[in-house]
Amino acid sequence: MAEKRPGGRSAKVRAAVLRAMDELVRERGVGEVTLSDLAERSGVNRATLYRRWGSLDAVVTDMTMQRLNTDSPIPDTGSLRGDLGAWAAKAARDITSPEGVLFLRSVVIAMPERDGDRALREEFLRDRYENVERMLRRAADRGERPPTVDEVLERLLAPMYFRVLMDSRPLDEDYARHLVDKLLADVS
Amino acid sequence: MAEKRPGGRSAKVRAAVLRAMDELVRERGVGEVTLSDLAERSGVNRATLYRRWGSLDAVVTDMTMQRLNTDSPIPDTGSLRGDLGAWAAKAARDITSPEGVLFLRSVVIAMPERDGDRALREEFLRDRYENVERMLRRAADRGERPPTVDEVLERLLAPMYFRVLMDSRPLDEDYARHLVDKLLADVS
Repeated sequence: MAEKRPGGRSAKVRAAVLRAMDELVRERGVGEVTLSDLAERSGVNRATLYRRWGSLDAVVTDMTMQRLNTDSPIPDTGSLRGDLGAWAAKAARDITSPEGVLFLRSVVIAMPERDGDRALREEFLRDRYENVERMLRRAADRGERPPTVDEVLERLLAPMYFRVLMDSRPLDEDYARHLVDKLLADVS
Repeated sequence: MAEKRPGGRSAKVRAAVLRAMDELVRERGVGEVTLSDLAERSGVNRATLYRRWGSLDAVVTDMTMQRLNTDSPIPDTGSLRGDLGAWAAKAARDITSPEGVLFLRSVVIAMPERDGDRALREEFLRDRYENVERMLRRAADRGERPPTVDEVLERLLAPMYFRVLMDSRPLDEDYARHLVDKLLADVS
């Protein structure tokens, strides 16, 4: 991404491409879209798509990250248990949404050549880590004893992804809150 | 899989197909193999492949599960910490191996139509859960206080998968043993 000025030509191209990708994925499913389809629908030529994203998977990753980052305010319920519960329940909804499944898919498919969209993914994760950190700092300021960011990721986010990937039991908000209860029982 | 008699014609067909798939994936990478390639290399016709596995992804899943299940004895070191440490270190090696990455990939790609190879995956997981259960029961018999199977999966396996998928830090045996130490500190 050579040009980063928000609202400039670059931002308009990105918006057009992500919107076109979104339409195509909804119409056909992610495996049935080619770079040529995307060029035609978005009005952005293949060479530009290739230079900017490098692959169709990177476009999918960019699209899903943008969607997952929208409307994601940090909960502020007044208690650590309330905040973590709301945060984990939201994460459970995200992970099981069509966007979340697409995101996971693009992450895993990009794994063997991770460097490709590594920067994009790291930016996405850094944003989310900072949100969690802010939530935990607020709890500490209130005099509560919060877990660390790594503990939140390991004890809440990791088991939720694992459940979706490897388990036959559903990932729902009850499970998310159960994980929060167990974490808080261990750290307090 | 209509016929299940081990050592019968069905088992020979499966062995030939999985061996051919293994060769093709090593030669070309998983995205570059078609059902026709596999039929040609294995000497098993497309209709049979389709009837038995349903998709190429299911063949990959079957192949990786078979490999991950081979040479996987349950550790028996005489202590819960030793057993869990050895088990988690082995899991870390499995997850980061080419087979582990392929397995994860086939699991995620099959997600939208999970029923397809669900039975296969459940069988694989059931075997592993039973191994963990046996390990924990042995600890209880010795008078130790083991975690539950779900706690082992949530606290050890889930964060290891998460690290490979979502984190830029490496998944290594040190991390596996760190997770074991934290789990045992919380359950004891």
